[in-house]
Amino acid sequence: MKSSILYEVCPTTVFSDDAKTASKVLDIDRWLLRTLLLGIGSPKIGAALWDGENIVSESDTPYRMVIRNRASLLRLIVNPLLYFGDDYSAGNIEIEGGLVPFLETVYRALERPGVVRSRYKRVSNWYRRELNSLTGSRKNIHHHYDIGNDFYRLWLDEEMLYTCAYFTEPGISLEAAQDAKMDLICRKLQLKGGERVVEAGCGWGGLARYMAKRYGARVRAFNISGEQVAYARQRAKSEGIVGVEYLEDDYRNISGECDVFVSVGMLEHVGTNNYRTLGEVINRTLSKSGLGLIHSIGQDVAEPMSAWAEKRIFPGSYLPTVREMMEIFEPSGFSVLDLENLRPHYARTLEHWLARFEANTAEVAQMFDENFVRAWRLYLSSSIANFSTGSLQLYQVLFSRRGNNQIPWTRNHLIDPGKDNGKL
Amino acid sequence: MKSSILYEVCPTTVFSDDAKTASKVLDIDRWLLRTLLLGIGSPKIGAALWDGENIVSESDTPYRMVIRNRASLLRLIVNPLLYFGDDYSAGNIEIEGGLVPFLETVYRALERPGVVRSRYKRVSNWYRRELNSLTGSRKNIHHHYDIGNDFYRLWLDEEMLYTCAYFTEPGISLEAAQDAKMDLICRKLQLKGGERVVEAGCGWGGLARYMAKRYGARVRAFNISGEQVAYARQRAKSEGIVGVEYLEDDYRNISGECDVFVSVGMLEHVGTNNYRTLGEVINRTLSKSGLGLIHSIGQDVAEPMSAWAEKRIFPGSYLPTVREMMEIFEPSGFSVLDLENLRPHYARTLEHWLARFEANTAEVAQMFDENFVRAWRLYLSSSIANFSTGSLQLYQVLFSRRGNNQIPWTRNHLIDPGKDNGKL
Repeated sequence: MKSSILYEVCPTTVFSDDAKTASKVLDIDRWLLRTLLLGIGSPKIGAALWDGENIVSESDTPYRMVIRNRASLLRLIVNPLLYFGDDYSAGNIEIEGGLVPFLETVYRALERPGVVRSRYKRVSNWYRRELNSLTGSRKNIHHHYDIGNDFYRLWLDEEMLYTCAYFTEPGISLEAAQDAKMDLICRKLQLKGGERVVEAGCGWGGLARYMAKRYGARVRAFNISGEQVAYARQRAKSEGIVGVEYLEDDYRNISGECDVFVSVGMLEHVGTNNYRTLGEVINRTLSKSGLGLIHSIGQDVAEPMSAWAEKRIFPGSYLPTVREMMEIFEPSGFSVLDLENLRPHYARTLEHWLARFEANTAEVAQMFDENFVRAWRLYLSSSIANFSTGSLQLYQVLFSRRGNNQIPWTRNHLIDPGKDNGKL
Repeated sequence: MKSSILYEVCPTTVFSDDAKTASKVLDIDRWLLRTLLLGIGSPKIGAALWDGENIVSESDTPYRMVIRNRASLLRLIVNPLLYFGDDYSAGNIEIEGGLVPFLETVYRALERPGVVRSRYKRVSNWYRRELNSLTGSRKNIHHHYDIGNDFYRLWLDEEMLYTCAYFTEPGISLEAAQDAKMDLICRKLQLKGGERVVEAGCGWGGLARYMAKRYGARVRAFNISGEQVAYARQRAKSEGIVGVEYLEDDYRNISGECDVFVSVGMLEHVGTNNYRTLGEVINRTLSKSGLGLIHSIGQDVAEPMSAWAEKRIFPGSYLPTVREMMEIFEPSGFSVLDLENLRPHYARTLEHWLARFEANTAEVAQMFDENFVRAWRLYLSSSIANFSTGSLQLYQVLFSRRGNNQIPWTRNHLIDPGKDNGKL
């Protein structure tokens, strides 16, 4: 199987470690660990070094971090937000008591007054960013999405939706919640049969299939991930779905007119420098009375992604604030009609993904290796913790052209589609 | 009666006009009028000068502007967005066929490509802005809100709500829509009995009364308009409402803790320079799991208010974009949970106000004079046109502290308060 991400996650040079240096825990090692914990806001966690002795013993916490060698300790001091990920993936750091609640505890500590979380983030992002030019975007997208459909199939739902679901009730299944998410989007967009949809960044094509099958829409869906587009085309063909066309092309090359513009989970890869361009693309594409919706991970305060996530998982990514997202809409004169923050839903979605992933780690290890399993476990777990503690948000923004009066009076149609909802 | 606004709207020096200069329409007058209409995007309107002859004859438009003297024509050339208002108020300009649709036609023309609407706005704002310092704000608020409770009582609803209502159905009464607006706000804020509410800018106290009466909340409501506070106190006393306290004080002086922070129609008077301060006030006031809501007129694109509205009607006002509003939330680390644009509802609210105003113009003229009636008619009519054409928006923004998990899963509780809505 493809394993480009594997070797990037665990570069062997980084993890070469001398057994001798790790053999004896010195006073300075203990001092460094204590300093590290103070620096990240003294989270309520236990901590130990490679001799297994508790350095920081919080009597009433079930969570403990064990650092297995001196090199890992030193790397954590230098750049905790990058090397925690790398060293956890390599097995140089173990977490006892549950990875997700451990991370939640750490993230909450990082929010404390006096802990300049963003300082860590800035320091961590010393490396060269992958720019989202037309070719740079292809490279960045390939890194994450082209590592194998068979891998994603192990832990995503049947429709292969790799974005936040919508839990109408907390306890519904992932499949039901992904269905509800797509329906919520269609209802927000007031999608009608025969309408022309442009989808920017279509993943494995699930939303496009849904819009064509359930609403009779005619969808042109764009994506620069070759593997995803191949999968989407094959699946639409085998299911006999008409009215959907998958184009392996960049959103910047979208042409033609549409009644509905939708983009779910692409903005994270666009980069703020290109938001105005995205707005111009929508402006030349959307019909006069059309509606648009952008669904994206975001954050309350403008900060770079954590170094590990951007370097190892999502190169070239940036998660915008609401203010930054407005750069898509304001210069082109779009009107924001509705913004919904679905943060708790992404934590729940990720819990489902993690559970399915954990049930399939043997197969994942066979596809890649044990370090890949640990890296992906950390990525899913830290994402849960980021959403549950509020470090990340999920914004759905509905918009139209300025002065479009073909909009409903209320949001009632979002809840009960059968209810009559007077137009202007 | 008080008439401070009267003389500001119609300064006698501006409107002194020589009957002789107005007597004969010259070729250059006609050329100037044509140039003016071209400059504002050639709206589909008829136009005539003081001889009554049609200069621009759109055969299929019922709307005609008649300029009654040369001085008014010249003023319109110099600064249309300021002097249209002044000269209309003074009776130097007449509109035939309906003021609201006439203005809608003009506003839509101003949106056309090539017409730099904001250029007019910038040019129009040459005069000194009233700064919103603690004393400046008092002066600005006094200008509009202290011109007489008896006047506002003629055309507002019984609860004296001077902000956008919420029409659950387009045809419901203004009273029902204002009631629905207050309930929508309480439901968004998940208001519960006994909760401590701070309201910043409480008008005549209607929402505070509602929250205390219907939800059993304990409300401290702030306002710097002396007349409004006196009215609110008197009314709460006469209705025997407990749990509400009106404070004649600036939002910047708010102290103590609250479970709910609400501000409806104050932000328009705050000024972008003070948004960060407002965020800090909320940050030091709101409890850990509290919710806040800000309801404000806004716009899609950052532009100053039209000169006439800011000079004559709302000195010191500025209507923010969503991006600008984020300056309240982002620096203090608040999380935006929900944003709803109620633009069509404000157009409808204003239609109700205008209809009630028109039914009482005889009384208004007796309180002030005929020019005041015309100025207020123009203000209400142009506001309708601004909302119906999309020049203005109405944003309701719900927010909490970062990572507050005491929020509902869905928006169902906004529609059907009886429905069980699972918590996190």
